[in-house]
Amino acid sequence: MHPFDKALELEASGDGRWRGRTLPEWANMVGPFGGITAATLLRAVERHPQRHGQPIALTVNYVAPVADGEFDIVTRAVKTNRSNQHWIVELWQGDEVKTTATAVFGLRRDGWTESEITAPQAADPAGIASSVPPFGVVWFDNYDMRFVDGAMPATGEDPTPSASSTTTLWVRNNPPRPMDFAALAAVSDIFYPRVFLRRGEFVPAGTVTMTVYFHADEPQLAAQGADFVLGTARAHHFSGGYFDQSAHLFGRTGTLLATSHQFVYFKA
Amino acid sequence: MHPFDKALELEASGDGRWRGRTLPEWANMVGPFGGITAATLLRAVERHPQRHGQPIALTVNYVAPVADGEFDIVTRAVKTNRSNQHWIVELWQGDEVKTTATAVFGLRRDGWTESEITAPQAADPAGIASSVPPFGVVWFDNYDMRFVDGAMPATGEDPTPSASSTTTLWVRNNPPRPMDFAALAAVSDIFYPRVFLRRGEFVPAGTVTMTVYFHADEPQLAAQGADFVLGTARAHHFSGGYFDQSAHLFGRTGTLLATSHQFVYFKA
Repeated sequence: MHPFDKALELEASGDGRWRGRTLPEWANMVGPFGGITAATLLRAVERHPQRHGQPIALTVNYVAPVADGEFDIVTRAVKTNRSNQHWIVELWQGDEVKTTATAVFGLRRDGWTESEITAPQAADPAGIASSVPPFGVVWFDNYDMRFVDGAMPATGEDPTPSASSTTTLWVRNNPPRPMDFAALAAVSDIFYPRVFLRRGEFVPAGTVTMTVYFHADEPQLAAQGADFVLGTARAHHFSGGYFDQSAHLFGRTGTLLATSHQFVYFKA
Repeated sequence: MHPFDKALELEASGDGRWRGRTLPEWANMVGPFGGITAATLLRAVERHPQRHGQPIALTVNYVAPVADGEFDIVTRAVKTNRSNQHWIVELWQGDEVKTTATAVFGLRRDGWTESEITAPQAADPAGIASSVPPFGVVWFDNYDMRFVDGAMPATGEDPTPSASSTTTLWVRNNPPRPMDFAALAAVSDIFYPRVFLRRGEFVPAGTVTMTVYFHADEPQLAAQGADFVLGTARAHHFSGGYFDQSAHLFGRTGTLLATSHQFVYFKA
């Protein structure tokens, strides 16, 4: 089984509840990669028999680190409207909530289509070397990341600050795997904290909350297949120990798949 | 009492519950202005005796229209960490949830501060006429809006599409009122749906979910006082009957107060 699908394996445990477990291959510095947690919460709703339509929007709040081991996901359909449906989701370990989420699912309708953003200029990923992460974070091995701009700062050297917080990269699952909404939720969190790039060094940082808006429909995701996604992310403001970062994810042919935003805690 | 504070009047009704009511002066096309609902949910958490720190981030999901009359807000502190605290909030009428929210509160810390965005160029609001909304939406009267760019399309004329989705405006409460986090949450939703501007006409549209990141701390909000905020908003992509819009709110002296994002349903 693909490592992404393995991480999203959930057993129904009754009344909108699902049992899952962390996997060592998705470990981040503390707890699992936030993107895989986001994908797992989304998948729990996708598995729910009352689910209506496809993912439209997802907000995930990283309440406390998920410990190695089993967890329970509690999904609750708050309301089902004609064209959309609202969910509250919680990830529990023992008597503690570790992650919360709200999700909007729904039906898309044909109509006026227009984009005000275009994919950034980027050489073909075939000509860019796969990135080797500069420190041993296990989950990186589950992605093939090819940096176009704003690669991670090197470790063990003097800090090399950057005036720009922008990273642009090609990314796909490793091994390749067809794109779906859960995989798109995970890739929305692929961008390392922008403060690393600006400061040119690693500092304590962690996402507090992330929101994903799913612009693509199912046929567009199907057309993307297992190909690379072109992602670009930047920050707007750093103050009070928090900064925001916004990301755009484009399909290989320039289709906007998702936009996402997060607020990140940091110490610097 | 100021109409904003009147709308946020809540009576404690036990166990993290609060009773409030809609006011005719905050009416939108259907239900109250989404910004006043967001502010009311935030205020309920602010009033909670276990509240730790100040607002950091807020996501509000507009589940169903709030009907005229009383409502109950249920606040739940999911977890209190050393530096932050996570909340789930629901607004109920009878046996129906009308709005959900997650909120992060917390302590800000001094440290590295940097901004990658600056306030847009704008003439002084004293020289710009206050906007008269082109149709009779009552809540507009609670704000003094002075459009720098991207004013509302006129009604009763042929559609005048715009190639840009950007609106920039000065805005403050009417009558003026000192800025606080709840007022900032409300102003985050001040921008009319970007699809109106692009299409040059009014079409059915409604915010499904909104996220606010509070960049300002209390002293910065206090320094803002009751002065105008300079806000700018734009869309990125319209498809499948949804579009996103992102907004930046700056204080009179250029301080970034908040960034916000929303996903909006539309028919066109």
